[in-house]
Amino acid sequence: MKKLKQACANVKPLDAGIRRLVQKRLDSLTKPPGSLGQLEELAIRIAEIQGTESPHVRNKLVVVMAADHGVCEEGVSAYPSAVTAQMVKNFCEGGAAINVLARHASARVLVVDMGVAEKISGNGHLNYRIANGTSNFLKGAAMTEEQALQSVETGMGIADEAAQSGTDLIAGGDMGIGNTTSSSVITSLITKTPAADVVGRGTGIGNEVLEKKIRVVHEAVRLHSGWRDGMDLLCRVGGFEIGGLAGLMIGVAGQQIPIILDGFIATAAALITAEICPQTKAYMIAAHCSAEPGHELALRHLGLEPLLRWNMRLGEGTGAALVFPLMEAACRILAEMATFESAQIAGKLQ
Amino acid sequence: MKKLKQACANVKPLDAGIRRLVQKRLDSLTKPPGSLGQLEELAIRIAEIQGTESPHVRNKLVVVMAADHGVCEEGVSAYPSAVTAQMVKNFCEGGAAINVLARHASARVLVVDMGVAEKISGNGHLNYRIANGTSNFLKGAAMTEEQALQSVETGMGIADEAAQSGTDLIAGGDMGIGNTTSSSVITSLITKTPAADVVGRGTGIGNEVLEKKIRVVHEAVRLHSGWRDGMDLLCRVGGFEIGGLAGLMIGVAGQQIPIILDGFIATAAALITAEICPQTKAYMIAAHCSAEPGHELALRHLGLEPLLRWNMRLGEGTGAALVFPLMEAACRILAEMATFESAQIAGKLQ
Repeated sequence: MKKLKQACANVKPLDAGIRRLVQKRLDSLTKPPGSLGQLEELAIRIAEIQGTESPHVRNKLVVVMAADHGVCEEGVSAYPSAVTAQMVKNFCEGGAAINVLARHASARVLVVDMGVAEKISGNGHLNYRIANGTSNFLKGAAMTEEQALQSVETGMGIADEAAQSGTDLIAGGDMGIGNTTSSSVITSLITKTPAADVVGRGTGIGNEVLEKKIRVVHEAVRLHSGWRDGMDLLCRVGGFEIGGLAGLMIGVAGQQIPIILDGFIATAAALITAEICPQTKAYMIAAHCSAEPGHELALRHLGLEPLLRWNMRLGEGTGAALVFPLMEAACRILAEMATFESAQIAGKLQ
Repeated sequence: MKKLKQACANVKPLDAGIRRLVQKRLDSLTKPPGSLGQLEELAIRIAEIQGTESPHVRNKLVVVMAADHGVCEEGVSAYPSAVTAQMVKNFCEGGAAINVLARHASARVLVVDMGVAEKISGNGHLNYRIANGTSNFLKGAAMTEEQALQSVETGMGIADEAAQSGTDLIAGGDMGIGNTTSSSVITSLITKTPAADVVGRGTGIGNEVLEKKIRVVHEAVRLHSGWRDGMDLLCRVGGFEIGGLAGLMIGVAGQQIPIILDGFIATAAALITAEICPQTKAYMIAAHCSAEPGHELALRHLGLEPLLRWNMRLGEGTGAALVFPLMEAACRILAEMATFESAQIAGKLQ
């Protein structure tokens, strides 16, 4: 716990002075003040997180954390657990959606096995597996306290390495059959919303499985309503990948690197993160709002407005990687536009 | 009129077969069907417009059309008309927002003087000036029938040249102090909405000027309520740049190139286009919905859903250029992802 406490202490409040300086610079550029809307706000956010008037997003990274979920034995997903390991292999071979979108954004992809049930064939991923998936949280805790801490510390370590290699922008992605169920329980408990209003169709379940999934989440919420804090909630309903993402976010925030939130699972991890280390919220930028109803609730709880509403529901970091070019655009506006003065353009009337 | 009629006849309905083929391919890729949401729909749209299963957006172009507006003498804008010429110079020197965003998207920028009031210093723009700005449409028609046709045919010619040089994707941008007033009249008349619900703050006018602008638009709507068709409406309330953009859209659609709609002015031009040549609508993709209330109304009238809602209100093609990387991402998903079969990944349960 000492390492985690130190990591939380490293997350500093943002410097309000930078916001003022960047706002002033934006208002001097050859456009009516504020006329680039959210693109201007994005430039300010990246600048204040990086703690510089000249923000940059050259060196981009997507960390995809994969793990399996014991709750799958309840039959809550459209795909078998075996798909988690198969998709990790696909990530390593460059054939998944996240590979395509990361390549397009000139971002690296780091694939981490946090606890995939089946053996992953091939290599190209980091092996930090904690166990062969979590335990079924309808029958007890998903993981032990030691495992929860291990998952978070793994994420912190990856954040440190990324910072040392000069990463400017990080997104956390997920892969784990069953993890919308885990994320639904987390969201229901933290946002105090009934299971039926949180649960969605995940990878695309039909009505019958949806009803079962709602019952499972409802039951899990009842069982684990006594959660004490973020780490305790992580133990109870898990996700090794969710713990890993939480640690990544805390570590990244401590290094003043913007965290781009992907979909429902990454945002559920952000909810846990905000319970463990609330000041991390200032370092989060929400890429999109997915088709999962719980995602909107989680974003609202964190006070974040998503950049896109595109009904995406894939995870892997795809929504986050998709907005990387928009982040870069925001930084370039700040760096490259002429000012009214330099271009000799008349100002407003009166 | 013969050229325009021919150009309209060249705009063919989309081939529904391509939509089915691309949908099938998308569903074979390693992701749950539909899980990339609007990104998948975008891939389909680009494919059906280009008439190919393998859409591509390598060669991108933003055509920025500039002109001045006689109605400015009513005092409806926050900036003096002189800014139009000054901004054209800024475009040619690469210092404007559209230059930065186009560079970021690896797109070319073509700057066209359609009728700027003041002389443009320097070069680097195309000179197709029709007059030193339009006439004040509160005192009669903004332009003659010959001028309206000239503006549209200029746009058509630019579309043809762009197609010949292998352009895959085109956006039309605008520059013209006073052109939100002209666009408001167009939108009010075509969508049958009262002036007060259409008019916005443009480049950032205060309450007093806003009230005046609403009165001017209201009066213009009354004066020009007898408009007969798209070309007649263009004559009446003008915009040489709006006519140019309309011609560009018709020409581009005839060449099966997607037209990315930018902000309120480009979308007002799209309204005129749809009146002249309704089948052009199938070739339009709306980049964003701006802060101007009339923009939402115009998009709804065209049946288009915007990709971004970022409160942008700059024009120049900025909103369109900002989404170019997202278009490219959609095409790359289709081209580069592995299939369930090629990656040997298990399908859905049952």
